Amino acid sequence: MYIHKKELLFPVQVKSPNPAHAAAVLEQFGGANGELKACLQYFAQSFSTPDPAIRDLLMDISTEEISHLEMVGECITQLMGGPDKEQKMEEMGADERKMSGEGNILSDAKSHINNMMHFNFNSTVQKSMILDGHGLDFVDSSGTPFTGNFINNVGDLVANLQSDLAAELRAKKVYEELYRHVDDPGAREMFQFLIDREAAHATLFEEAIMRAKELENKKAHQTGDHVNMYFDLSLGGLAKNEFSFAKQAKVFEGPVEPKE
Amino acid sequence: MYIHKKELLFPVQVKSPNPAHAAAVLEQFGGANGELKACLQYFAQSFSTPDPAIRDLLMDISTEEISHLEMVGECITQLMGGPDKEQKMEEMGADERKMSGEGNILSDAKSHINNMMHFNFNSTVQKSMILDGHGLDFVDSSGTPFTGNFINNVGDLVANLQSDLAAELRAKKVYEELYRHVDDPGAREMFQFLIDREAAHATLFEEAIMRAKELENKKAHQTGDHVNMYFDLSLGGLAKNEFSFAKQAKVFEGPVEPKE
Amino acid sequence: MYIHKKELLFPVQVKSPNPAHAAAVLEQFGGANGELKACLQYFAQSFSTPDPAIRDLLMDISTEEISHLEMVGECITQLMGGPDKEQKMEEMGADERKMSGEGNILSDAKSHINNMMHFNFNSTVQKSMILDGHGLDFVDSSGTPFTGNFINNVGDLVANLQSDLAAELRAKKVYEELYRHVDDPGAREMFQFLIDREAAHATLFEEAIMRAKELENKKAHQTGDHVNMYFDLSLGGLAKNEFSFAKQAKVFEGPVEPKE
Amino acid sequence: MYIHKKELLFPVQVKSPNPAHAAAVLEQFGGANGELKACLQYFAQSFSTPDPAIRDLLMDISTEEISHLEMVGECITQLMGGPDKEQKMEEMGADERKMSGEGNILSDAKSHINNMMHFNFNSTVQKSMILDGHGLDFVDSSGTPFTGNFINNVGDLVANLQSDLAAELRAKKVYEELYRHVDDPGAREMFQFLIDREAAHATLFEEAIMRAKELENKKAHQTGDHVNMYFDLSLGGLAKNEFSFAKQAKVFEGPVEPKE
Amino acid sequence: MYIHKKELLFPVQVKSPNPAHAAAVLEQFGGANGELKACLQYFAQSFSTPDPAIRDLLMDISTEEISHLEMVGECITQLMGGPDKEQKMEEMGADERKMSGEGNILSDAKSHINNMMHFNFNSTVQKSMILDGHGLDFVDSSGTPFTGNFINNVGDLVANLQSDLAAELRAKKVYEELYRHVDDPGAREMFQFLIDREAAHATLFEEAIMRAKELENKKAHQTGDHVNMYFDLSLGGLAKNEFSFAKQAKVFEGPVEPKE
Amino acid sequence: MYIHKKELLFPVQVKSPNPAHAAAVLEQFGGANGELKACLQYFAQSFSTPDPAIRDLLMDISTEEISHLEMVGECITQLMGGPDKEQKMEEMGADERKMSGEGNILSDAKSHINNMMHFNFNSTVQKSMILDGHGLDFVDSSGTPFTGNFINNVGDLVANLQSDLAAELRAKKVYEELYRHVDDPGAREMFQFLIDREAAHATLFEEAIMRAKELENKKAHQTGDHVNMYFDLSLGGLAKNEFSFAKQAKVFEGPVEPKE
Repeated sequence: MYIHKKELLFPVQVKSPNPAHAAAVLEQFGGANGELKACLQYFAQSFSTPDPAIRDLLMDISTEEISHLEMVGECITQLMGGPDKEQKMEEMGADERKMSGEGNILSDAKSHINNMMHFNFNSTVQKSMILDGHGLDFVDSSGTPFTGNFINNVGDLVANLQSDLAAELRAKKVYEELYRHVDDPGAREMFQFLIDREAAHATLFEEAIMRAKELENKKAHQTGDHVNMYFDLSLGGLAKNEFSFAKQAKVFEGPVEPKE
Repeated sequence: MYIHKKELLFPVQVKSPNPAHAAAVLEQFGGANGELKACLQYFAQSFSTPDPAIRDLLMDISTEEISHLEMVGECITQLMGGPDKEQKMEEMGADERKMSGEGNILSDAKSHINNMMHFNFNSTVQKSMILDGHGLDFVDSSGTPFTGNFINNVGDLVANLQSDLAAELRAKKVYEELYRHVDDPGAREMFQFLIDREAAHATLFEEAIMRAKELENKKAHQTGDHVNMYFDLSLGGLAKNEFSFAKQAKVFEGPVEPKE
Repeated sequence: MYIHKKELLFPVQVKSPNPAHAAAVLEQFGGANGELKACLQYFAQSFSTPDPAIRDLLMDISTEEISHLEMVGECITQLMGGPDKEQKMEEMGADERKMSGEGNILSDAKSHINNMMHFNFNSTVQKSMILDGHGLDFVDSSGTPFTGNFINNVGDLVANLQSDLAAELRAKKVYEELYRHVDDPGAREMFQFLIDREAAHATLFEEAIMRAKELENKKAHQTGDHVNMYFDLSLGGLAKNEFSFAKQAKVFEGPVEPKE
Repeated sequence: MYIHKKELLFPVQVKSPNPAHAAAVLEQFGGANGELKACLQYFAQSFSTPDPAIRDLLMDISTEEISHLEMVGECITQLMGGPDKEQKMEEMGADERKMSGEGNILSDAKSHINNMMHFNFNSTVQKSMILDGHGLDFVDSSGTPFTGNFINNVGDLVANLQSDLAAELRAKKVYEELYRHVDDPGAREMFQFLIDREAAHATLFEEAIMRAKELENKKAHQTGDHVNMYFDLSLGGLAKNEFSFAKQAKVFEGPVEPKE
Repeated sequence: MYIHKKELLFPVQVKSPNPAHAAAVLEQFGGANGELKACLQYFAQSFSTPDPAIRDLLMDISTEEISHLEMVGECITQLMGGPDKEQKMEEMGADERKMSGEGNILSDAKSHINNMMHFNFNSTVQKSMILDGHGLDFVDSSGTPFTGNFINNVGDLVANLQSDLAAELRAKKVYEELYRHVDDPGAREMFQFLIDREAAHATLFEEAIMRAKELENKKAHQTGDHVNMYFDLSLGGLAKNEFSFAKQAKVFEGPVEPKE
Repeated sequence: MYIHKKELLFPVQVKSPNPAHAAAVLEQFGGANGELKACLQYFAQSFSTPDPAIRDLLMDISTEEISHLEMVGECITQLMGGPDKEQKMEEMGADERKMSGEGNILSDAKSHINNMMHFNFNSTVQKSMILDGHGLDFVDSSGTPFTGNFINNVGDLVANLQSDLAAELRAKKVYEELYRHVDDPGAREMFQFLIDREAAHATLFEEAIMRAKELENKKAHQTGDHVNMYFDLSLGGLAKNEFSFAKQAKVFEGPVEPKE
């Protein structure tokens, strides 16, 4: 079971709202390499993980990722100009609303955003404005919805942990790109924290992979006659001369004759 | 931030594994009215909710829903016959694996499941077996992946809470259907607990809707000239005689003439 | 069966084309809270609705929503600058087309749009231009396709009608946001009409919910021992002191002990 | 605008309910070649169709397709055993529900379906039972949701009409397969009617294609130097000897040298 | 089996990078009418195609389409400013990265793109930058992912070939629109080549349709009593007077009476 | 550019058709860990890979994967009972078709499948029969369509190669499960070949990861102050005592105080 505490794992204090930057950060809220994906992947894998220590590790990191998700959600909300707390539109009659048009009833942040909508037209910002009134959707930076397809889980511990290591490295890379593109110092402090944490997780998963390999029986692997072959199918390249595997293996261009 | 505790919110003890029942319960793990949808919907809404008590309520219930998700995941895992802890396949050489075929190296639960695969062919069970080795995916009972499209969030507090109330009523209904179809006593105890909790949440959201309506300004609503009309567009029916709204409103079959 | 009449339910006359505004209005053509979703949700529910008056109401409103869909489609087409009726590109040889580049063969509206493409780059406008030549797709304002996942239908009349009420309130909110952001007077007249109509539908669904509850048997509800509990899982908040349900219920932080 | 009439375009009278057949027929309710797809494709295309007669044809056929959709929905509902009109579960207290299990409170049709669930496990039937209580979802026969991606619309009249012709031929083929597999005489009468109608639509679209080609300017087509080439990229086949185009064209295996 | 050669089927040499244009061209990389869709559609159909010459034709064209996909991918990569070969970010410590912000370590092309991100905010460009570092995703111009739903395959040869003809005409139209909007001469040379090739494929599929129809038995078609009817369901239009089919058929407004 | 040869990379000879097994093997045709996913992932990554040898390796393996895709498609086609080459349905008049029902015009394989449909109801088999007439769709074993969301590509070479390694290990695991469940000797020979090849690819990607790490600059990594921390967020577990990283790091339960 879970307990939620009303403080962020790491404090988030955006200095200057910028809706296009908010849209960029959505990539890590509902995107393919984002915090929700990581949280759910480790959570799902934990149910079928036989080793208790690795199962615990998966739940520790999964719980940290949902805490990251909360930080990223707070960052996006602040970059969008804050929640539309007053919801003044609700309080106006139809005539007033007709007269006001947009602008005069809006805070400066909102006016800035409306200008963006008229002159710059980022479609993800536009959708967020129309649909949510500064709210949050589980979409990526292009407005594409989160999907369970992002989550990797097969019944093999090493394969799962390798998928987790790869997920951490991709997430870290995306935060590095966000660091380059989003110049708000408060957001960058959060990105740096998250880069550090994904690096720590990557190191932990590397250790867990070694542990999982040791847990496996050392008997002969279940491969057959076609492992030590290099198929040179993209003609004119370098790989067959550069990779030691290819140098030791049988290099040929196929097809394989049937075994007797 | 979140803390995870290594005990379930409510204990789950399945008596007799049944993979087709496991597939049915997946509906509430990754489906349109399931626990993940509820958890994420209230979480996303909380960021833009102006009233602190309602925001707290959303986070209390969201945190309970992720604790439900963990219970449902445990229930599915037990109904599938438990995790494939030994992963014996990994430890066999190719020759052994060829000889063994399926069956003799498998536990009874697994053998039962393999029989199902050969004679009954539920595609969701088959996918779960092949892909996950008894693992869990964020899919519904037909294998369709979870999607952010399930989540309702617009920038209006009453609309959001009405969406939440509706979501609880739908979730409760699905658990009632699962109660009818899955006859395992341990699973049914869990369903009854979850039916109770969704009912409690529904009551809370009804109270929150009243609170939110009071928070709104009491000024005239922003509607215009076309509210008090009933469009009788499906000919030959009863509604225009049965609904008091229709009796008070202008009933006609369209089209509307333009206003001057 | 359906009959289509070649006039709109309400006249749509856009004054000044603006493709970014067209992209915004797509939210109600193919989006999560749009007209197609509403039309199909009530249509699907009608097949399993036992009460004839409510079934008729669902079909009346469903039929009105597809008539709204037609209006919204016309509005988007006009905001995009009208259909590309002449399709002149078709009539040119390759040499001419190479020489002309874009611009000189294009109407002013089109030239305006091309400028937008070169300087402002809203991706939904760009897609609509490239893919459809001013045509219409069943996508939302960020280009994400319509999906059957938007539609709520479970086998419970009250739950379904609550879902319908919530859908109307969300749709109304989105039209209010469109009213704020799209300043074309013709489009705003249409939005005001649709705001009115969604409000009327919401009132009708509230009445239908009361009717459906009366149709239900008044016997004891099927809840158990865990209804009157408030789980205080998000620590440090206000809800347990503010909601009367929480004041009457058992408040605790879990986990639940198993029933005997 | 649309008017709905409370009678089906063609009467549907299923003789013997069979949920697996219901699941099969879902293919034409929410599937890639189904009635909703056809209805929405012609509707969307109509907004940008310059020729008034073809635009009218598109709306005539679109309106017929939504009337087909209603027939198909009715057929599925009857094959599922009819709507769960009494919704008795709602009326029972928790104790009764616990005692009853499934079966004794259920109609014969329902009992039959429950047996299927326990012994045969078609996942689409199972989802329909759990989620909808005999209701309807916009999914295909494997439970995959309808999507706007099914709809073809580009800004070219001939291309659109060719897409429509292809859609009709695919829909007709699916009904022919359903005719083979679903042996209920009432359902087959409906399939025969729909096969006839798709054939009629195909004939109409063939005529419309000829008309659209005549509307196009007869000037030289906008092709360049690479039309009269046959790329023989799948080695060892017959096509280059069998197709007259290949016999007249330059046959070679690429790559193309850049033009001067 | 396949062999890849390290040269493009047609040379691609973009003159001036423009990320918004790159995003536009994505439509043909991962979009509904793009090269991947065409490649996979003909590939999938080939397995169930009885006529060897048509099966060979499908594989010839499928192989050409994947060669087109490679060209389109190269074009997008060049329009995005080339691969981020140096990946300098990787090589910097945290302090350096903090100091540098964006800009000074970036090539001119990259700086141009960063400017676009700050001032123009096309969401697809933004996603491509953040997620891929100039890389390629299988998405369309609005960032929506490629899906198997794009692919048409039913068990009927003529229906399949008509779907293929329609796909070629739609692809050709999209390239014509890209030709209009993307003014880079190198990209246009590629578009012209692809327009030519889609035209050649369309001609081949027309010939294949005739061949497939000849392969079919000439016996009476399997239609019944409802073919020769024109349903005039969209009132007030021209089609029933303009189409010869309608003139010969029974025109009426439904519903159909049941057959005896 | 690509060349296709009309022979399989490895011969596929299924002994006994079994449509449920065909549905299982679909997992590797259009599923999350299948051949299309692998082919497209390496293809997409190659465009932004700076090292020529690794780029060549990616194209060699991508080309092998599409050759695997062809083998898997052939295997599914044979398991489904072969293509419906005669398409006799096409050649019958309506009266004959009515009389024949299903069965008497069908081959034995087809009759076997029809029996399955009436008595066993695997929804993926049913969809394949209805929709394709023994054809192939790009779906997984539960009928869920292939999506570009399966593909991992970020602008970081090591992260990409780790994703590729993980993908190979997952694919290998799925083939091992297929080997257990599908007892046809011809299919198993193919699975063994593919297990071998995925193992060979995994070894190659491990070598490529080492090479890529050497290509990176050895300067200090860009991490900050929060790497050497272990967040113990899932209480009551073992990980903090078992992992050496946790033993060396600061273990605490959050939250982090802001840096000065």
